[in-house]
Amino acid sequence: MDFKILTLGQALIRSPIDLSARDHTDRSDYVRDDQGILYDISADVCSRCKGQSRGDVLELAGPREKIYFEPSQVHAAIVTCGGLSPGLNDVIRAIVMCLWYRYGVQKISGVRFGYRGFLPEFGLSLMELKPTIVEDIHDEGGTLLGSSRGYGDRLSDIIECICRNKINMLFTIGGDGTQKGAQRIGEEIRRRGLKIAVVGIPKTIDNDLSFMEKSFGFETAVSKAVEAVQGAHVEAHDTIRGVGIVKLMGRQSGFIAAHAALGSSDVNFVLVPEVPFDLDGPNGLLTHLDLRLDRRNHAVIVVAEGAGQDLFVDDSQTDASGNKKLHDIGIFLRDRIQDHYAAQKREVNVKYIDPSYIIRSLAANPSDSIFCARLGSNAVHAAMAGKTEILISQVHGQLVHVPIQLAVSRRNFIDPEGPLWRDVIDATGQPRSMKNF
Amino acid sequence: MDFKILTLGQALIRSPIDLSARDHTDRSDYVRDDQGILYDISADVCSRCKGQSRGDVLELAGPREKIYFEPSQVHAAIVTCGGLSPGLNDVIRAIVMCLWYRYGVQKISGVRFGYRGFLPEFGLSLMELKPTIVEDIHDEGGTLLGSSRGYGDRLSDIIECICRNKINMLFTIGGDGTQKGAQRIGEEIRRRGLKIAVVGIPKTIDNDLSFMEKSFGFETAVSKAVEAVQGAHVEAHDTIRGVGIVKLMGRQSGFIAAHAALGSSDVNFVLVPEVPFDLDGPNGLLTHLDLRLDRRNHAVIVVAEGAGQDLFVDDSQTDASGNKKLHDIGIFLRDRIQDHYAAQKREVNVKYIDPSYIIRSLAANPSDSIFCARLGSNAVHAAMAGKTEILISQVHGQLVHVPIQLAVSRRNFIDPEGPLWRDVIDATGQPRSMKNF
Amino acid sequence: MDFKILTLGQALIRSPIDLSARDHTDRSDYVRDDQGILYDISADVCSRCKGQSRGDVLELAGPREKIYFEPSQVHAAIVTCGGLSPGLNDVIRAIVMCLWYRYGVQKISGVRFGYRGFLPEFGLSLMELKPTIVEDIHDEGGTLLGSSRGYGDRLSDIIECICRNKINMLFTIGGDGTQKGAQRIGEEIRRRGLKIAVVGIPKTIDNDLSFMEKSFGFETAVSKAVEAVQGAHVEAHDTIRGVGIVKLMGRQSGFIAAHAALGSSDVNFVLVPEVPFDLDGPNGLLTHLDLRLDRRNHAVIVVAEGAGQDLFVDDSQTDASGNKKLHDIGIFLRDRIQDHYAAQKREVNVKYIDPSYIIRSLAANPSDSIFCARLGSNAVHAAMAGKTEILISQVHGQLVHVPIQLAVSRRNFIDPEGPLWRDVIDATGQPRSMKNF
Amino acid sequence: MDFKILTLGQALIRSPIDLSARDHTDRSDYVRDDQGILYDISADVCSRCKGQSRGDVLELAGPREKIYFEPSQVHAAIVTCGGLSPGLNDVIRAIVMCLWYRYGVQKISGVRFGYRGFLPEFGLSLMELKPTIVEDIHDEGGTLLGSSRGYGDRLSDIIECICRNKINMLFTIGGDGTQKGAQRIGEEIRRRGLKIAVVGIPKTIDNDLSFMEKSFGFETAVSKAVEAVQGAHVEAHDTIRGVGIVKLMGRQSGFIAAHAALGSSDVNFVLVPEVPFDLDGPNGLLTHLDLRLDRRNHAVIVVAEGAGQDLFVDDSQTDASGNKKLHDIGIFLRDRIQDHYAAQKREVNVKYIDPSYIIRSLAANPSDSIFCARLGSNAVHAAMAGKTEILISQVHGQLVHVPIQLAVSRRNFIDPEGPLWRDVIDATGQPRSMKNF
Repeated sequence: MDFKILTLGQALIRSPIDLSARDHTDRSDYVRDDQGILYDISADVCSRCKGQSRGDVLELAGPREKIYFEPSQVHAAIVTCGGLSPGLNDVIRAIVMCLWYRYGVQKISGVRFGYRGFLPEFGLSLMELKPTIVEDIHDEGGTLLGSSRGYGDRLSDIIECICRNKINMLFTIGGDGTQKGAQRIGEEIRRRGLKIAVVGIPKTIDNDLSFMEKSFGFETAVSKAVEAVQGAHVEAHDTIRGVGIVKLMGRQSGFIAAHAALGSSDVNFVLVPEVPFDLDGPNGLLTHLDLRLDRRNHAVIVVAEGAGQDLFVDDSQTDASGNKKLHDIGIFLRDRIQDHYAAQKREVNVKYIDPSYIIRSLAANPSDSIFCARLGSNAVHAAMAGKTEILISQVHGQLVHVPIQLAVSRRNFIDPEGPLWRDVIDATGQPRSMKNF
Repeated sequence: MDFKILTLGQALIRSPIDLSARDHTDRSDYVRDDQGILYDISADVCSRCKGQSRGDVLELAGPREKIYFEPSQVHAAIVTCGGLSPGLNDVIRAIVMCLWYRYGVQKISGVRFGYRGFLPEFGLSLMELKPTIVEDIHDEGGTLLGSSRGYGDRLSDIIECICRNKINMLFTIGGDGTQKGAQRIGEEIRRRGLKIAVVGIPKTIDNDLSFMEKSFGFETAVSKAVEAVQGAHVEAHDTIRGVGIVKLMGRQSGFIAAHAALGSSDVNFVLVPEVPFDLDGPNGLLTHLDLRLDRRNHAVIVVAEGAGQDLFVDDSQTDASGNKKLHDIGIFLRDRIQDHYAAQKREVNVKYIDPSYIIRSLAANPSDSIFCARLGSNAVHAAMAGKTEILISQVHGQLVHVPIQLAVSRRNFIDPEGPLWRDVIDATGQPRSMKNF
Repeated sequence: MDFKILTLGQALIRSPIDLSARDHTDRSDYVRDDQGILYDISADVCSRCKGQSRGDVLELAGPREKIYFEPSQVHAAIVTCGGLSPGLNDVIRAIVMCLWYRYGVQKISGVRFGYRGFLPEFGLSLMELKPTIVEDIHDEGGTLLGSSRGYGDRLSDIIECICRNKINMLFTIGGDGTQKGAQRIGEEIRRRGLKIAVVGIPKTIDNDLSFMEKSFGFETAVSKAVEAVQGAHVEAHDTIRGVGIVKLMGRQSGFIAAHAALGSSDVNFVLVPEVPFDLDGPNGLLTHLDLRLDRRNHAVIVVAEGAGQDLFVDDSQTDASGNKKLHDIGIFLRDRIQDHYAAQKREVNVKYIDPSYIIRSLAANPSDSIFCARLGSNAVHAAMAGKTEILISQVHGQLVHVPIQLAVSRRNFIDPEGPLWRDVIDATGQPRSMKNF
Repeated sequence: MDFKILTLGQALIRSPIDLSARDHTDRSDYVRDDQGILYDISADVCSRCKGQSRGDVLELAGPREKIYFEPSQVHAAIVTCGGLSPGLNDVIRAIVMCLWYRYGVQKISGVRFGYRGFLPEFGLSLMELKPTIVEDIHDEGGTLLGSSRGYGDRLSDIIECICRNKINMLFTIGGDGTQKGAQRIGEEIRRRGLKIAVVGIPKTIDNDLSFMEKSFGFETAVSKAVEAVQGAHVEAHDTIRGVGIVKLMGRQSGFIAAHAALGSSDVNFVLVPEVPFDLDGPNGLLTHLDLRLDRRNHAVIVVAEGAGQDLFVDDSQTDASGNKKLHDIGIFLRDRIQDHYAAQKREVNVKYIDPSYIIRSLAANPSDSIFCARLGSNAVHAAMAGKTEILISQVHGQLVHVPIQLAVSRRNFIDPEGPLWRDVIDATGQPRSMKNF
C-alpha cells in the first residue's frame, strides 16, 4: 500500500501571496514541493566519531545504566544567573528532587545571587537545598537562590570556592553569558584535572539561543505579553483614532513580539530587531499608520525593545555587564507618532503600554512547568553519568546534550525569509518591508 | 574546532534508578550513549519517488508559488466533527482569514453540526463565513459551527451535497473517525474525477493520533486539568487520611493524565490505559495506597477514563458511534477505596473530582492559539495548491503534509518503556508496576 | 440646596414585569417609592444598654486604646474546622502577623485538623506559628493547619487541652457547627471563671450564615463556578439539542448557584433549595425545557446540591456529623432528562459537570484576600481587647462584633421575594414558579 | 435571651499599636467601644419630605409597579464617556437586555464615542442595539460604543440631537465630569418641559465618587494591579538590594494603590495623594528605604499616580479636558532612588513597573460582572418609572437612587484616620508619617 501526497492536477496559477521564489531576498519564501523533513530522525552517535558530533548528531539526554559519581560522594551546586524567567524555580526543584529521590544524593547547595555567590567579597554563604525546601517553590516566580549579572570571568575565585566546598557537580542556569562562564569554568576544571561535572540549563526569555528550539518560560512570557497586547487593542479600538503601542522584551531577537502578535490577533505592525524599518518616507511606518487610521480608526503596534536602534544617533553606550545600552524605542515611537499628528493637526490618542518585568516574573504555566521539570531531571542524569561542559536542550522535540561551546557560538534570530516571519506578516497584514528604497 | 560531548571519565557505577537495559520489557529503558538524533532533518522529496513517501520523508507545508484553484472560483467549506477541543474556533478563523485576505476567496461556508450538516434529513443550511463573522470567535470555546459525532459513512449524500453547492475545497476538522470519513470522501471524489480538495486538520484532545507530535488544544486542556489536580491535592492534604482522585479524559491513551501529573507535582499514582494495574494483592494499588497513607497521611490519584477497564467484568457495550462504552473507573476507584478502609475500620476521606467537559470547552491559551492559527493557514495553502487527502500536522516542530491514509492507520500511545512514562514514574514515585506476578 | 429624586410625572402604566405588590406571596416584590435606607448608619452602643444590643446596634470592630492582655503573657491558638474555603490561609496569616508585629505576641499555636487537634486520642501536637512560617501560605488553597468536621461537643477535653497548654486566646475559623462549639467552649470558660478569649471568624462557602453580608472565599468560589457554567454553555450550545447541567455547592441555600448564574449569563434555569419545583406536569421543569430546546436548541441548568430534595422518596439518612445526607440531584436530573427524551424518542445530548471541590480548594482571589486579611487582624484586635464569644463579621460594609449566640441562632437563605432572586429570574428568563397548581 | 458582647474584664493595658485617641490628628484612630452601626437600616422616604432626602434617606432602586413610559413609545440611548473601566460592556448589555426582555422596549441606540456622538461635526451616527448585538460583549474589555472625554458642556447640540432622534431615555455611563454633564442635560430638559429621563451609572476606576461604596470594575482592576505588584516583589526580592516600584492609577485618591497593597502582601511603602510625604530628611522615604534595604535587602513601593505632586515645582499645566496634568511620580521616584544610591556609591537595582492601561482594559471578573448587571437593570427600572437626574449607586450593600447633584457635589478620598489606611499601615509596616517636622 502506498501513502501518497495527492494532488488534484497541475498547479499553474500564480499565487496572489506576495512571496519570493528565491533565497536571500529578505522576503519570505514559497515552499517547494520537494522540500521535506525526515520522519525517523534517530541516528547513531558512532563510536569512532564519538564526541566529534559537531552538531550533526546530537546525543540523547536521559538516565544512563552506568553512572560516574558515587551518590554518597556527590556535593551538587546550583546557580541561577541573569534576568528572571518563568520556571527557574521549577528547574531548581527538579534538580534537587531528581538528585535526592532518584540517586540518593543528599548534599545539595544553592549558590546565592548568581556567580557572585562564589566570590569572597560578597560574603554569601551556600544555601542548603533539600526536598522540603524546594517542594513548593515552583508556585512562585523568580528564583529561590536570587540572581545577578556578570562575574562569570572571575575564574580562579569561582574554582577556589568550588574546591573549598568540595563541590563536584555544578548546574548553571542562565543565558549566553552565563554559559560562556560555565564553559570557561569547565575548561579550567579540565585543565586542572578535577573531577567536577558542569552541566548547563539554558535560559533565555528572548528565545535567542541556538541549538534550542524552545526556551523555558518563553510560553508563559508570551501568554502574559498577549494580555498586554489585548489591552492595547481595547484601548486603541474604543477611542477616536487610537494607537496602542506595546513594548516587549527582545534585545537582539523579536521572538516574544512575533509570538505575542500571533497569539493575540489584533496587531497591525510588529517591529523586531531583525527587520529594519523607516519611520518617515513613502514606505515608512508613519505612512502606513496614516492609511490604517484613516481606514480603520485604530491601530496596534508591538515593538521589541531592540527594534529600530538605527533610528537613533548611535552613541554606543554600554552597561556594566558590557551589553549595549538600548535606546527606548517605545517612548520614541510614542513621541514621534504624537508629534507627527500634532504637526498635521489631526487627532490621535496614543496608549502606550510597557509591561516590562510583568511578563517574566510570574510562575511558569503548566506547559513550561513540565518542560522545566524535564530539563532539570535530565541535567541530573547527564551530570551523574559524568557528562560535562554540555547543555540540556530541546531539539526536534527531544531532549539532547549540546556541547556548551557549540551552543554559545552563535545566536538564534527570526529569519525574515522563514515561516515564522511569513506567518507574522500574514497575521498582521503589515507590508513585507517598511524601508524606503 | 571540535565540539565534543565531554565526559569526566569512565562511568562504572550501576545507576540506582531502576530501569531496564533492554527493549520490550515493559519497563522504561536507560538511554545509551550512542543514541542520538540528527540535527539537520531537511530532506528532498525526490522527484522520482514523489508521492511515495511512505512516511520516510514528509512534505513541508506552506504557500506554493503556483496554485491550482482560481480564487474567484473557489467555494470552500469547513466542517467540525466530534467532541470539543480548545482552539476549534481559532482554526476556523485562520482558514477563513487566510482564504479571504491572502487568496481573495470570498465564498466560504460553514457546515453545521459535523457531517450531519451535509445530510438532507437534518435540514441544516450552510452558514456563510467571512472575516467580520469570525474575527472574534477565538475568544470563546467550542465551535462556531456546532459539532456532532458520526455520519461520515453517508458518502453519497455527502458528495451529493458538496456537488449541489459547488464546493471545491473541504476542510475537515476532527479526529480519527472524522478523518477516516474525509479519506473516504476524498477517494470517492477521486473515483468520480471531481476537482475537489479535501484537507484535514487533526483534532484529538487525547493526543492519540499518530504522525503528529502535538494536537491543538492539548496544552490548554492539560493546564485546566492541572487545576483540578491541585484542588484534589489541597483537599487530600488538609484532611485526615485524605485521598484525592481526579478522573481525566483519555479513552485509549493517557497523555492528559500523564501531563497533568507532570504539570502539577502533587500526584502519587497515575493510572493510564497503556499500563495495566491490579487493585488488590501484594503489589496492587490498594497496598501501595496503604503504605502512602500510613507514611504521609494523604495521596493523590490521577486516572484516565480508559484505564483499568480489565478490572470490570467485560460486557462489551458500545455507544451509538460504535465506540466501546467505558466503565466508570473513577467512581469504581472511589467506591473500592472507601470499601477497602471501611472493611479495615480505618478512616479515609476520599475527595473525588471529575472535571469532565471543563477541560475541553474553554478557549485556547495563547500557545494553542498560535498553533491553531498556523494549522489553519497552512491547510489553506495546501488546498489552494491542489493537495488533497492530506492532513496538516506538526512533526519535529515543523508543519508538514501527511497523507490521511497514513495518519489513520494507527494510534498514538504512551510507550511504557519511553521517556514520558519514565518521567511520570520519577515525578510521582509510584511503583514501576502495580501488577501482581 | 435641595437634592431631590426627580420624577418626570405620574407613573400610571402597569409594569409588564410580572412581580407581586404584596409580601408573603412567594414571588418577588416590586419596590415602593417610599422604601429607603439610612445613609448615616453610625449609632451609639449606649453605655446603659451596653451588651444588650440584641442585634439593633452592632459594635464596630477595630483596635482599642486599652487592651486586656499583656502581650508577653499571651498564648494564642488558631483552629480551622469543617470544609475548605478559599482564604483560610489568608485568615491564619493575618492573625499571626497582627499578633506578632502589631502586639508583640510571640507564642502562637496552630491546632491541627479542627477540634480533633485538642483531643488526646488523636495525638496531634500543636504547631508553632510565626511570620516566617505563614508569610507565603496565602498563595495556596486549603488550610495550613488541616481541618476536620465535628468534635465540637467534646467540651471537657477541649478545655483541658486549652488549660494544659495555657492558651488564653482562641480563634475559631469555621461555620455554623464550629461556632456553636466555640460558643459552648466560651460558656464553659466563663462558667469556670477563666480568662480566655474566644473569637470566631465565620466561614461558610455557601454564604448561609446570618448577621453577615459576605463570607470569605465566596467570591472566589463563584468565579470558579462561573467557569464551569461557561463550559456547560459551550458544550450545550455546540451540539444538537444540548443540555448542560452544572451541580454546585449549596446544601441549604443556593447563593453560589444564584451568583454563578448572574456571573455567567448563559443560564436558563437555576434550581435552589429555597424554591421548590416540579419535574413533571404542565408547569414542571421538563415542560419548560421542552419549550426551550424547541425554540433555542440548547439549555443550561444550574442546580444547587440541596435543591429538589423533595423529589426523592425521603429516607432521612444522616452522615457522621449529623448532617442530613443529600440525594444527588445532579445525577438525578441528568438521568431523568435523558429518560424523558428517550421515552419521546427525541434526541438530547446531556453534558453533566460537577466541579465539586474545584471551586473551594483554590487560593483566594485578591478581593477575598483583602477581606480575609481584615477579618483576621480585627479578630486579633477584639481578642486583645478582651472581647469573647463574638464573631468578626461584615455588615453594611463595616466589620463588626456579633455575639456568636446571635449569629448561630438562624441561617441565611435566598428570599424568593427579594431582589437577588428577582435578578436571577430576570437574568435567566426562567418562570417565576415551576410548581404545578 | 440576651445577646451580649462579652468581655473578659476591664481593659487597662495601653495598646502597643500607635494610633490616636482623638480625631483630626492625621493619624488613624482607635475604635471606641461605644461606636456601632445600626443593623436594620431600612427607612421610610416619608411622603411629606419626598424628594427632599438630602442624603439622609436614600431611595431603594428596583422595579416599580407603575411605570411612566409606554414601552412601545420608548427610544432609549446609552452613552459611555471617559476612560475605560472593566465592566462597561456588562452595563451596556444589562441595560439592553432589561429594556428588551423585561419591558419590551425595542428601540435602543448607542451613542458613539461619548458625548461626541451627539455632535454634528463628528458625523457619528447612532448604533442600533439589541440582544443579538450585545449578548457576548461582556467577554471583551472596553466599550462597544467607544468612548471619549469632554464635550458634556455642548448642551444645546446634545439636546438638539436627543430631540431630533426622539430619544426619551438617556443612560449616561461615566465619571464625575460625565455625570455633571448629565445633570446639566437633565436640568435643561426639565427647563424645557421635555419628558426625557436621564439616569446615570457612575464609573470611576479610582473609586473616588461619593455616595457610592464601590465602583464597578474596581475589583477587577485591583486584581490585575496585584499581579504587577507581585511581579515587582519577585524582581526586587531575587536581586541584590532590589527596589520594585509600581505606579498605579489614582489621580486624586489612592484606593487602587491601597487595595493592591492589601491584596498582595509584599508591599513596604504605599504612597497616595491623600497622605503627603517627604523624600529626603530624617523621616523621609529615602531614609526609611535605607533602613529597609539594610535590614531586608529588598523593598516594594506602590505609588498612586497622583501622589507626591508637591515634590515637583508646580507649573500647573492642564490637559485638554481641564484636568491638571500630573507629573510622573513613578519615573521621578525611580530616578531619585537611583541617584540617591549612586551618590552613596551603594548598589541598588530598581525595577520599575507601570502597568498603565493593562489594569483597566480587561473584561470584568465575575464579581464585577454581577455588580454591573444589577446596576444596568436597576437603571432601566428607574428610567421606566420616570425617575430622572439620578444615579444608581450601591450604599451599605443596597442599590439606591442618588440625585446626581448630590453625588457630584464632593469626592471620595482615603481618610488617613480611617480603618482602610490603618489596615494599609499595618499590612505594610510603613511609618505612620513620612513627613519631617
